[in-house]
Amino acid sequence: MRDITNGELKNASLSQLNDICRELREEILAAVSECGGHLSSNLGAVELTVALHRVFDFPKDKLVFDVGHQCYAHKLLSGRAAAFRTLRQEGGISGFPKRTESEYDSYDTGHAGTAISAALGLAKARDLKGEGGYVIALVGDGSFNNGLIYEALNSLKILNTHILIVLNDNGMSISETVGSMSGILKEIKSASDGADVPVEDSKDDIRLFERFGLTYMGVVNGHDVGELLTAVGEAKEALKEGSVLLHVHTRKGYGYSFAERAPTETHGVGAQSGHEYSAALGEELTALAEKDSRVVAVTAAMTDSLGLRGFFTEFPERAYDVGICEEHAAVLSASLAAGGIRPYFAIYSTFLQRAYDEVIHDICGQNLPVVICLDRAGITGRDGETHQGVFDLSYLSPIPNLTIAVPKDISEFRAMLRESLKMSGPLVIRYPREGSEGAELPENGIEIGKFEVLHSTMSDIVLLAAGERCLSLARKVLHRANAEGIDFTLVNARFVKPLDEKLLSSLPQRTVITLEDNVLTGGLGDAVARFYRNSGKHIYAFGYRDEFIPHGAVSDLMEEYGLSEEAILDCVREHYARR
Amino acid sequence: MRDITNGELKNASLSQLNDICRELREEILAAVSECGGHLSSNLGAVELTVALHRVFDFPKDKLVFDVGHQCYAHKLLSGRAAAFRTLRQEGGISGFPKRTESEYDSYDTGHAGTAISAALGLAKARDLKGEGGYVIALVGDGSFNNGLIYEALNSLKILNTHILIVLNDNGMSISETVGSMSGILKEIKSASDGADVPVEDSKDDIRLFERFGLTYMGVVNGHDVGELLTAVGEAKEALKEGSVLLHVHTRKGYGYSFAERAPTETHGVGAQSGHEYSAALGEELTALAEKDSRVVAVTAAMTDSLGLRGFFTEFPERAYDVGICEEHAAVLSASLAAGGIRPYFAIYSTFLQRAYDEVIHDICGQNLPVVICLDRAGITGRDGETHQGVFDLSYLSPIPNLTIAVPKDISEFRAMLRESLKMSGPLVIRYPREGSEGAELPENGIEIGKFEVLHSTMSDIVLLAAGERCLSLARKVLHRANAEGIDFTLVNARFVKPLDEKLLSSLPQRTVITLEDNVLTGGLGDAVARFYRNSGKHIYAFGYRDEFIPHGAVSDLMEEYGLSEEAILDCVREHYARR
Repeated sequence: MRDITNGELKNASLSQLNDICRELREEILAAVSECGGHLSSNLGAVELTVALHRVFDFPKDKLVFDVGHQCYAHKLLSGRAAAFRTLRQEGGISGFPKRTESEYDSYDTGHAGTAISAALGLAKARDLKGEGGYVIALVGDGSFNNGLIYEALNSLKILNTHILIVLNDNGMSISETVGSMSGILKEIKSASDGADVPVEDSKDDIRLFERFGLTYMGVVNGHDVGELLTAVGEAKEALKEGSVLLHVHTRKGYGYSFAERAPTETHGVGAQSGHEYSAALGEELTALAEKDSRVVAVTAAMTDSLGLRGFFTEFPERAYDVGICEEHAAVLSASLAAGGIRPYFAIYSTFLQRAYDEVIHDICGQNLPVVICLDRAGITGRDGETHQGVFDLSYLSPIPNLTIAVPKDISEFRAMLRESLKMSGPLVIRYPREGSEGAELPENGIEIGKFEVLHSTMSDIVLLAAGERCLSLARKVLHRANAEGIDFTLVNARFVKPLDEKLLSSLPQRTVITLEDNVLTGGLGDAVARFYRNSGKHIYAFGYRDEFIPHGAVSDLMEEYGLSEEAILDCVREHYARR
Repeated sequence: MRDITNGELKNASLSQLNDICRELREEILAAVSECGGHLSSNLGAVELTVALHRVFDFPKDKLVFDVGHQCYAHKLLSGRAAAFRTLRQEGGISGFPKRTESEYDSYDTGHAGTAISAALGLAKARDLKGEGGYVIALVGDGSFNNGLIYEALNSLKILNTHILIVLNDNGMSISETVGSMSGILKEIKSASDGADVPVEDSKDDIRLFERFGLTYMGVVNGHDVGELLTAVGEAKEALKEGSVLLHVHTRKGYGYSFAERAPTETHGVGAQSGHEYSAALGEELTALAEKDSRVVAVTAAMTDSLGLRGFFTEFPERAYDVGICEEHAAVLSASLAAGGIRPYFAIYSTFLQRAYDEVIHDICGQNLPVVICLDRAGITGRDGETHQGVFDLSYLSPIPNLTIAVPKDISEFRAMLRESLKMSGPLVIRYPREGSEGAELPENGIEIGKFEVLHSTMSDIVLLAAGERCLSLARKVLHRANAEGIDFTLVNARFVKPLDEKLLSSLPQRTVITLEDNVLTGGLGDAVARFYRNSGKHIYAFGYRDEFIPHGAVSDLMEEYGLSEEAILDCVREHYARR
């Protein structure tokens, strides 16, 4: 779409503003159809964003997004309309706020709950430097479950600065928002809508925010530009006296009927194909739960994306979605296990970073049989830096008592899940979104800590690969090598911790090559090199170099950041020639 | 002291219960004088613990401590009185709850904020198994700042089970509790004391808890056993209908006038000697702040222990204690830096685990110049598993953009702090509590990323040691080796990331030995081995093996878990002989 200048926006009539909203909505729909992306959350924030841009002066004023699933209209209104169809493409516009992309993006986000803390820091920095300008945190109600939000609210008075918190309340995280805070927000909205909620109750709820030092304003209809302009203007005025919470009621997917009716399905839109590990998780966990009454599932607001909707329907009493509360989910899992229950805690790789202390302190410190199903591990692609699950092998490997499994395909993943019930300590199974089903494994088809030799030769080279993507890459390399008359032994390194030391000790090959869908520092390559230290073997490790990996296509990024088929083949060639 | 049987406690008269409280208090004082430990927090919880043990039936009922700084009386009342003078000694009674120590300890803790989540998990496990019994979370008001507490409260209704939360409100974390939640609790207490707080305000505050599904009861005088027995009994009764919050007002250090007057100083009591890095941090930061108005300090409820009291007094507008909110502290630091300020975020090594995602996502992802002053790194000793700072080199090394410095003495630490202001990206400086001052460094006496050769010889062995403890150990080994006519080159590996690749490339020695006060997986040894991979060099790494390290004396634990002077000397001897 065309770039809408700041001047045009500032001078537009109400009806022109509504036209602009329509243009923005059309462009968001078109761009997401073309490039994938977060649809329903962005559609819901169009009018609100227009109102904020009309009333405030960005980039002098600072807008901080929570998560960033609502930033598309903001990007379109800040000089990035022409480039917008490069959304989520390598080198193109990021799906999240990025300071390096535009001065209008004041703070990078991607994970939930950071916006109020970040707005406080920017506001305090402004005060310390004696500068002016307003700082606004735009937060969805899903994030209001997160502990970090509460920690930030708790320090509003300590920090003694003024920020505007705009609560974009659509009643949804990716799935429906859960928990008591969500109930409180619902009550306020109902009272404001004239529904049958005692006014006193609603006032109590509002006082909750006031206790934290906020002037509460709302509820505002987030799709009525006129109402929004008035409310945002009043909030700006009130901001001179202190911090303000402006409560805006929106509908996720607004303006696109399909997205409104199916906001969960249209939260993230992207090319999907083939089998998904998450579907297998749902099926296997359901089967396990039918056989073993101790099996329960724990998630942090990701029931659908993790494949657990069926489990939740089947076993509502044994399925706990605690909202965007990764830390709590981890401690809850640990304590369920301490009480004799067998929790399966499913979570994305980068979000487990939020519960790192709890994985060490609660789960592994007590050596409890919690199974962490770590989805979206490895490069995830289009969401960029904040969502690339490339650190987990590194941050998990140093933790005592923990077993780390990396299945070679979905069948092996299923077998690992079945085997996990026999374990007495913690287990992480890490896997990407998509995979292939693979050959079915027999009962007891997998032994914890044992590698699998997939192809055995007399050549002096062995390649150890962890996980489906790396094994698929290894097979491609093997195929091309074979065509050149070169051969190597191929091993499925399906446990990164513990290593299969017996098998490693027995390998006669002098050249050992490792592949992992993880940064090189602290992953499989380092573990294998540690095991073989001073053995005289030559170790070559392939994985990602020491950089944050931006958005792009998974295969392109893998190639570019360290898992290059050509480079691996070259390594094989070179050592084959040397023998 | 003598063991007090459950029968005795259940049948004791009020006056006998008061005698028991006196006995407990005397024993706690005596044991802490002998063994060190947490004094004032434990003294404040004596009557409350007696009341809980009188009313509930442990271990059938479950008591979960938050942090665990209040568990001594519980330990004394659960069969551990005879062994109590082994408190915090290797092989003796732990200063924190430990499931492996007693069935009366239902859940291990050490870090703040886990108790409500853990109690919910234990209660839910009980329900799922169809068992009976009550579950109680005993939480200090300091922890009520922590986001994890809020995440747990938010899911009380979701989990649909009953727990009793006992809020032990003494108005203190280690320092005075800060933040809005603390203000709310204070208001309730004041109203209950008949002070000049409008009853309506206090009622609003109480409704806050009710909104989360709790029946609020209190405020109870936590040092009046009779009042406590009534209140705990009523809470137990109410627990049949739903979850209860029992608000108990105690005084930290109660019953020992010195501890009451100086609760911060008597929070942790232990043998201290010599210089402390924290004191140097306070001095240098104050000096930096005087010169550069951008310098600010951020802490999470540890102002005193981190040496920052002076800074806070000197620069109240530039010093932020946000309470036990490590995640928020990290994001606040990142955003202050994004706003052009230079934050120094001081925190203990194991507590930074709580902000791991924020270090990746907010600080390093945006490559912001935040300096993380990582105190209590390496083995900390008597606090045991949950406080040993032995993972940080491993979990920090994989993060792009981050520099990791490990000073060899306090002077080098000072120089690093001065140098840090010139950096444009994130820096972690990790150090233990105690150290030696060392020789003063000239201006520009340290270059980021450069090692220092301390002793250079023609021998074929080089030893790379990171940090004061490891260098001190290396010097001892060198001294003994020299006495045997053996020599080696000694290098101060003061940056674990980036490594000094230029210096490493120039080292001619074929045997390289590394020492680090960290687990072996993912630390300095792995980094050096990665750099030298396939070079033909022999690498020997000394650090801690893959186990949680329990409580004990620092030097004993270092020796026992992997940094043994004798073993290092043997390694040197063996390779010297081989040349």
